[in-house]
Amino acid sequence: MGYEIHALASCEAFTVIVITGASRGFGQAFALAFAKQRALLDDTHIQMHLWARDIDGLTQTAALVGNECKNDAMITIEITTTQVDMNNRIDYSGKIESFLASTKEIDPIQVIIVHNAGTLGEIGLVQDLSSIEMLQDHMELNVSSVMWFNKRFLDLFGTRDSTAQVSTGKNSHIIVNISSLNAIEPFATCNTYCVIKAARDMHHRVIAIEQGNIVKTLNYAPGPMDTNMQLELRESKHTNEKLKNMFNQLKANNTYVDTLTSATLCIKHVYGTNFVSGSHVDYYDIA
Amino acid sequence: MGYEIHALASCEAFTVIVITGASRGFGQAFALAFAKQRALLDDTHIQMHLWARDIDGLTQTAALVGNECKNDAMITIEITTTQVDMNNRIDYSGKIESFLASTKEIDPIQVIIVHNAGTLGEIGLVQDLSSIEMLQDHMELNVSSVMWFNKRFLDLFGTRDSTAQVSTGKNSHIIVNISSLNAIEPFATCNTYCVIKAARDMHHRVIAIEQGNIVKTLNYAPGPMDTNMQLELRESKHTNEKLKNMFNQLKANNTYVDTLTSATLCIKHVYGTNFVSGSHVDYYDIA
Repeated sequence: MGYEIHALASCEAFTVIVITGASRGFGQAFALAFAKQRALLDDTHIQMHLWARDIDGLTQTAALVGNECKNDAMITIEITTTQVDMNNRIDYSGKIESFLASTKEIDPIQVIIVHNAGTLGEIGLVQDLSSIEMLQDHMELNVSSVMWFNKRFLDLFGTRDSTAQVSTGKNSHIIVNISSLNAIEPFATCNTYCVIKAARDMHHRVIAIEQGNIVKTLNYAPGPMDTNMQLELRESKHTNEKLKNMFNQLKANNTYVDTLTSATLCIKHVYGTNFVSGSHVDYYDIA
Repeated sequence: MGYEIHALASCEAFTVIVITGASRGFGQAFALAFAKQRALLDDTHIQMHLWARDIDGLTQTAALVGNECKNDAMITIEITTTQVDMNNRIDYSGKIESFLASTKEIDPIQVIIVHNAGTLGEIGLVQDLSSIEMLQDHMELNVSSVMWFNKRFLDLFGTRDSTAQVSTGKNSHIIVNISSLNAIEPFATCNTYCVIKAARDMHHRVIAIEQGNIVKTLNYAPGPMDTNMQLELRESKHTNEKLKNMFNQLKANNTYVDTLTSATLCIKHVYGTNFVSGSHVDYYDIA
């Protein structure tokens, strides 16, 4: 489904951005933050691909991005929305193939992948885990699908020589893994979430050392934000009491991190001079 | 299959030890190290359960342990070997149930689980990953099966109150996760291995904060040892060249860490005063 602002100038360079989980919360904020920070991008032709399960939410995100850029005569932004289920191997792998094939064709100067889709899994003590099946589904949705996306992306855009420099006129491609404090710090009753976040961080650290300047990665922990995930943690009867009190206090005091603020900081960091490939950066490190 | 040394004194307290991947390499060394360090255990009735796919290797390990203890009139050691496939959900979950049911029945004063079984997965760059199926199998064998074992163990032996102290006459139960430097440091061409090791470490860190003094965990990185895993890395044409050179040098200089030395150090650390539940301890930290 296309949502095009201005006509495409097909002979010029493109920056391609894909954001998963872009129908709401932090993913939606990330898309909007990119639109607002578009001056940071090196070229004026942007393809933004928004992925999520919820097509209505995606349409809303596309409208927000379109609206942000509509009076900008300098920029061409093409927005596509893709309904995808990261729980469904056939569905997501097919969509990864289509996306990469069309992206390869336009030979972009920079591709930015934002792996934002993710789930908490089950809240509860380690012994509250319900089944091996659940755990394996959680692994696929949150880790294996991300690793597969990166594998196929690197097949087409990666290097096999970690000392390789990007060729002139090209930028490093960038993979942003939306991480969490839980990738580096365990929380009681957040076993399934901590595990997949630690696994994802490590995967992106491996890419960083394998890909040199060709593909850089960032593990970005956006800080506690008042998203559906937080609501789930505040409302579950299995959430550790101390943790729940902390989250309730953030809510009561209105001190949750704003999604747009956090996404904006992340994008500025990626285009700033302090960005170190493979690093884990927390909102509070750079706020 | 039982392998019993001395008659069992059924009215006395037991220490139960289970070691996975005990048919060879580090797992075998760990079993032998426990036998050699048996004086560290608080009681003289030990059940040692050896698990692996290879029954011949298990028999060999049982013989080594039996031989080590055969002239010790003070100790009763009962050894069982269990052929188990951690790739097969039906097989391993059934064996976990049987093991836990019989263990619960004897009401041991201490249970020690050593999660040593593990695989490298695929050696190669992130883009060399062969399939989502392979990755999911790798996750189950190395992470989900371990998490399931711990879940069921904690159902029976864990606490729901992390401030709980162990009751008098009981020791903390201990879960040793055989970890790796790769749980905390990425290596090029070791993507699948790094990811599962990071995930396992985090899972055991979560248990540590949930279980207080009732069940303690240790993430132990045993150092580079000349096991089948190292052979695989030295021989694969996909291993990063720098890494391969490093391993070849360890081999040529005969400076690999000895499996029995490393296992012994780990056991002494677990029974020592510096053991902090949830910590990642490397052989070189304590050697």
